[in-house]
Amino acid sequence: MEHGHPNRHRVVVIGAGFGGLAVVRGLRHVDVDITVVDANNFHTFQPLLYQVATAGLGSDDIAYAVRGIFRRQRNVSFRMARVSAIDLAARTVTLSAGPPLIYDTLVVAAGAVSNSFGVPGVDEHAFPLKSVEDAVALRNHVLGKFETAGADPTSAHPGALSVVVCGGGPTGVEMAGGLMELFGHVLAKDFPQLDVGSARVVLVEAADRLLGTFHSRSSARARRTLTDRGVEVITGVGVREIDPSAVVLADGRRIDADTVVWAAGVRASPLAEMLGVPLARGRIVVGTDLSVPDHPEVFAIGDIAADALQPLPQVAQPAIQGGHHVACQIGRRLCGQPTNPFGYRDKGSMATIGRHDAVAELPIGLRLAGPLGWLAWLGLHIVYLMGFRNRANVLVNWTWNYFTYDRAARLLTEDDLSETRPTDMS
Amino acid sequence: MEHGHPNRHRVVVIGAGFGGLAVVRGLRHVDVDITVVDANNFHTFQPLLYQVATAGLGSDDIAYAVRGIFRRQRNVSFRMARVSAIDLAARTVTLSAGPPLIYDTLVVAAGAVSNSFGVPGVDEHAFPLKSVEDAVALRNHVLGKFETAGADPTSAHPGALSVVVCGGGPTGVEMAGGLMELFGHVLAKDFPQLDVGSARVVLVEAADRLLGTFHSRSSARARRTLTDRGVEVITGVGVREIDPSAVVLADGRRIDADTVVWAAGVRASPLAEMLGVPLARGRIVVGTDLSVPDHPEVFAIGDIAADALQPLPQVAQPAIQGGHHVACQIGRRLCGQPTNPFGYRDKGSMATIGRHDAVAELPIGLRLAGPLGWLAWLGLHIVYLMGFRNRANVLVNWTWNYFTYDRAARLLTEDDLSETRPTDMS
Repeated sequence: MEHGHPNRHRVVVIGAGFGGLAVVRGLRHVDVDITVVDANNFHTFQPLLYQVATAGLGSDDIAYAVRGIFRRQRNVSFRMARVSAIDLAARTVTLSAGPPLIYDTLVVAAGAVSNSFGVPGVDEHAFPLKSVEDAVALRNHVLGKFETAGADPTSAHPGALSVVVCGGGPTGVEMAGGLMELFGHVLAKDFPQLDVGSARVVLVEAADRLLGTFHSRSSARARRTLTDRGVEVITGVGVREIDPSAVVLADGRRIDADTVVWAAGVRASPLAEMLGVPLARGRIVVGTDLSVPDHPEVFAIGDIAADALQPLPQVAQPAIQGGHHVACQIGRRLCGQPTNPFGYRDKGSMATIGRHDAVAELPIGLRLAGPLGWLAWLGLHIVYLMGFRNRANVLVNWTWNYFTYDRAARLLTEDDLSETRPTDMS
Repeated sequence: MEHGHPNRHRVVVIGAGFGGLAVVRGLRHVDVDITVVDANNFHTFQPLLYQVATAGLGSDDIAYAVRGIFRRQRNVSFRMARVSAIDLAARTVTLSAGPPLIYDTLVVAAGAVSNSFGVPGVDEHAFPLKSVEDAVALRNHVLGKFETAGADPTSAHPGALSVVVCGGGPTGVEMAGGLMELFGHVLAKDFPQLDVGSARVVLVEAADRLLGTFHSRSSARARRTLTDRGVEVITGVGVREIDPSAVVLADGRRIDADTVVWAAGVRASPLAEMLGVPLARGRIVVGTDLSVPDHPEVFAIGDIAADALQPLPQVAQPAIQGGHHVACQIGRRLCGQPTNPFGYRDKGSMATIGRHDAVAELPIGLRLAGPLGWLAWLGLHIVYLMGFRNRANVLVNWTWNYFTYDRAARLLTEDDLSETRPTDMS
């Protein structure tokens, strides 16, 4: 930690997600002072949140202490706090705790939050899936519903055990598949007195097919696999409203369910509004080099940035690549060189549908599905997790789950049981 | 699950700790219907709570879903609830949720809670260490103190980072040793801007030596090792009062510390009072066969029971052996045989003091200390964890911690940071 050097260039990175980590890593050999700010002291491996929500992994397995990640990188320090104000003129970031930060370069990588799209009842009655806390709250809610019904099977009402997943993108597909496994392989054995087979898992997507950003054959494959495994897939119908115990579809259909997962989409973190610069659909408008127009010292990357040229998918890859790019540009500026434009390289996309099945699309036009797609998915996630310390635990948990059909992380405290809806939680 | 059989003997077990699990396991081949009741849906491996509190293990590593443990045992069902009333005349147990339970035999194994011994300030300002939630709250509090001080090193007050551990039994000794490792090997690297060396770990014991139930040479060994590692050990002085930011000793000394761990002792769960039978120091008085006098159908085991003949240590072994014994007696009664008296067999005791060091005392008079004691401790805990599913994760985490001096589980959310004392935590 070399702080206090009077002349060193100060970089402040807001957010310890994929984008923020990539910036810091990219600056490891650059003579700058970096401060990372995040409300949590850990990075969340968001692609596996659905595994925590379905009790396949513990929350510790997908969360990595930021200080631990950068222990060997001497030019980084970390501040655990929320950002309360950003002053572009004074070049300061005010935090919820401790003294404000002064920057020479600011990188905004605060990511996205769940987007209700104005659908009534979403904020009050549905569970988002954007943070470890979201995932644990959802897991506890689902397990609590089974505990309550199991204590008195005659009292259960229709939909007490059912789950509606709103949104047929990768998160919704993975969540629905994971829930079906949790129900069929674990909870059916844990609660033999309950008719777990009558617990529905319904996946609702407003567009006419699942996985809209994938090839239509991958969409069809995902639908067929999910349906074979017992998920009810409804496409082409939006959600009109969410009640405390049901989802009402746009066509008037009512699906009884005490648990609703909202995976219909995200919007940029409200932090974007603190900058006072032009936004597009809530995202910070950036130039070709990912800097903010008229503020070359401010960059925005990942889900919070709106790249004018190419609307990028809101997944890890654009954030990671944007982070690498910005780190390079900071290095170039320090050497007096001009910045380069950012070019996104599509590395493909994938979604797992459950045991032995996934769809993977590689940029060379190759599509994998079934067990081969699943192995590709597994391999990729293990490689990405390699940089982190918990990979061995994740492997142990996955191997255990795979061979025993068990789920380790189905833990619940009595306090959780009395909480029935996300609004009660906090 | 064979419930509803009209003539089968109904056993209700209150508590899924070591004692309760031993009863259930002991009845696996007996033709009874067992219902286990616990406020959590998991068993807590209490001997490793200090590992969670010092960020060495995640909470999922020491908690095991009860339904998972007994998945293959067909005569068990589980109810997640608190006990709100016990009626010995009607032979019913009323729960906080769901219908009441009717029993033919009742086993009370509800364990112990932290005991403040009437010391002012303990309930308000000190952290107990009896549950996973206690351990996580303590971990979050300690890490939060470092985050706050790290954000603004000049603002830190004396004792901001210091911890006083009250109670020099195995829990206190293990906690003090674990904290010293967390401070020296992890937090000193995480917070290079802080003078972590000035953060004190003070272990206070009212008796004149640590580990009072061990041989005096083990006590001396523990004291020497802890002192060598930087723990300040104070014996022969009780605690008079605990302030929000200090511990006041009986001799008037005041130790500034924002974190106080209360490991000075336990008392029986208040559930004992629900039975309306004679108690001794809060514990249910039992006869030689561990049944309650005048209620041969009610047994009490473990920390909640007061064995008239031999005051047993409040650790796992008496609970486990008592559970086995009670399971046997239930089987004997069903065959019309009289019950046998319980005989406790001392299997020794051990306490780890940190890396490479532990004291272990075997009943044959053999005492192990240093690396050999530590290996014995490690081996025993691995064998005991073998019955559970998370052993592989625990091994991975321990191996990682051992070779890297890192701690994986140091995770904190911003909400945790605003909570400073256990009383704020609901």
